[in-house]
Amino acid sequence: MKLIGYFRSSAAFRVRIALELKGIKVDHSFIHLRKGEQRAPDYVAINPQKLVPALVLDTGEVMTQSMAILEYLEETHPQPPLLPRDPIGRARVRSLALIPTADIHPIQNLRVMAYLREKYEQSEEGTFAWSRHWIETGFDAYEASIATDKRTGAFSHGDQPTMADLCLVPQVFNAARFKVDMGRYPTIKRIFDTCMKHPAFDAAQPSKQPDAET
Amino acid sequence: MKLIGYFRSSAAFRVRIALELKGIKVDHSFIHLRKGEQRAPDYVAINPQKLVPALVLDTGEVMTQSMAILEYLEETHPQPPLLPRDPIGRARVRSLALIPTADIHPIQNLRVMAYLREKYEQSEEGTFAWSRHWIETGFDAYEASIATDKRTGAFSHGDQPTMADLCLVPQVFNAARFKVDMGRYPTIKRIFDTCMKHPAFDAAQPSKQPDAET
Repeated sequence: MKLIGYFRSSAAFRVRIALELKGIKVDHSFIHLRKGEQRAPDYVAINPQKLVPALVLDTGEVMTQSMAILEYLEETHPQPPLLPRDPIGRARVRSLALIPTADIHPIQNLRVMAYLREKYEQSEEGTFAWSRHWIETGFDAYEASIATDKRTGAFSHGDQPTMADLCLVPQVFNAARFKVDMGRYPTIKRIFDTCMKHPAFDAAQPSKQPDAET
Repeated sequence: MKLIGYFRSSAAFRVRIALELKGIKVDHSFIHLRKGEQRAPDYVAINPQKLVPALVLDTGEVMTQSMAILEYLEETHPQPPLLPRDPIGRARVRSLALIPTADIHPIQNLRVMAYLREKYEQSEEGTFAWSRHWIETGFDAYEASIATDKRTGAFSHGDQPTMADLCLVPQVFNAARFKVDMGRYPTIKRIFDTCMKHPAFDAAQPSKQPDAET
């Protein structure tokens, strides 16, 4: 299998963590989102959604959308599990995972920020303020969902990493970039710190990818 | 079970279609998003994410995030299936479903439009243009993903409705409201028309809900 990503893409980062946790070896290739390589005809032929990541199977099948890829990896490589066994627990983990993946990241990703600069003549600080607003809105929801829930453990759900943590951690990296005050989110911060001590999360982080830039 | 929704919410609409297709009877209750009832303390106590839908189980458990709810319904009420059986097919359906649910709808929902009006002094037409842009970006991706793929059938994947169609149809309703030219999307349009002839999709549509407004 080959994962096509970009070091700073939250969506690719989620998938990298899953591959590390499950011990799945893949080839990594990278396209440069800031240079617009996701819109190059070669890549669009692979992923008409013009986004990363794309997971290319050995049979040539292409998978897109990080959450769909995570579910695929869970179904085909069930150990260690990234979802609990009980349906209500699974729903909780997926719901938490969707806060960053649906309600935060798509609103503050590269293409939305580019559009704000272009159409609304926003400065870099203007687009950063936009991103902070949506990250804070989503983190308010995430923190409120985990702070007092007894199912929260060392990780977002229990004491093992789940899809929720895989989606949360890349968003915390983004939050740092946009200078969100993480003091407002003590439970998120605690879980993030726990995750980053785990070798799978560490190996998947942007700065450790071959295409990393400062 | 009780579903808390809003007639025009795409996310609640997706879940209503699933309940209809699977023949699951629930009580329906509604909060008025335009009046801000999702931010009222009573509702925040149920769903700290301040979004609809929320599915309240008879045990009092609350489920949030439409995609997590759809997966829960699929796991607990597997007939008729909303996902194919093969992992690659499941990944394709989930990936298609995520185009509206992650890449379109969160960027053009009520709260983002309100923020554009407030912070960037956008007129109603300005916010409509924003919504059209993101719907078109996403529909370009959806159409390109289904137009020539042999797995596309009467519906987005094969000849039975799947999660992909449940997520696509509410987004087409939004597209109509924001005056997107659907002539650009012949395959989406064909599938939408097929869906709307199905009684489950028809019964779930916004205008047929008790809280509907014109």
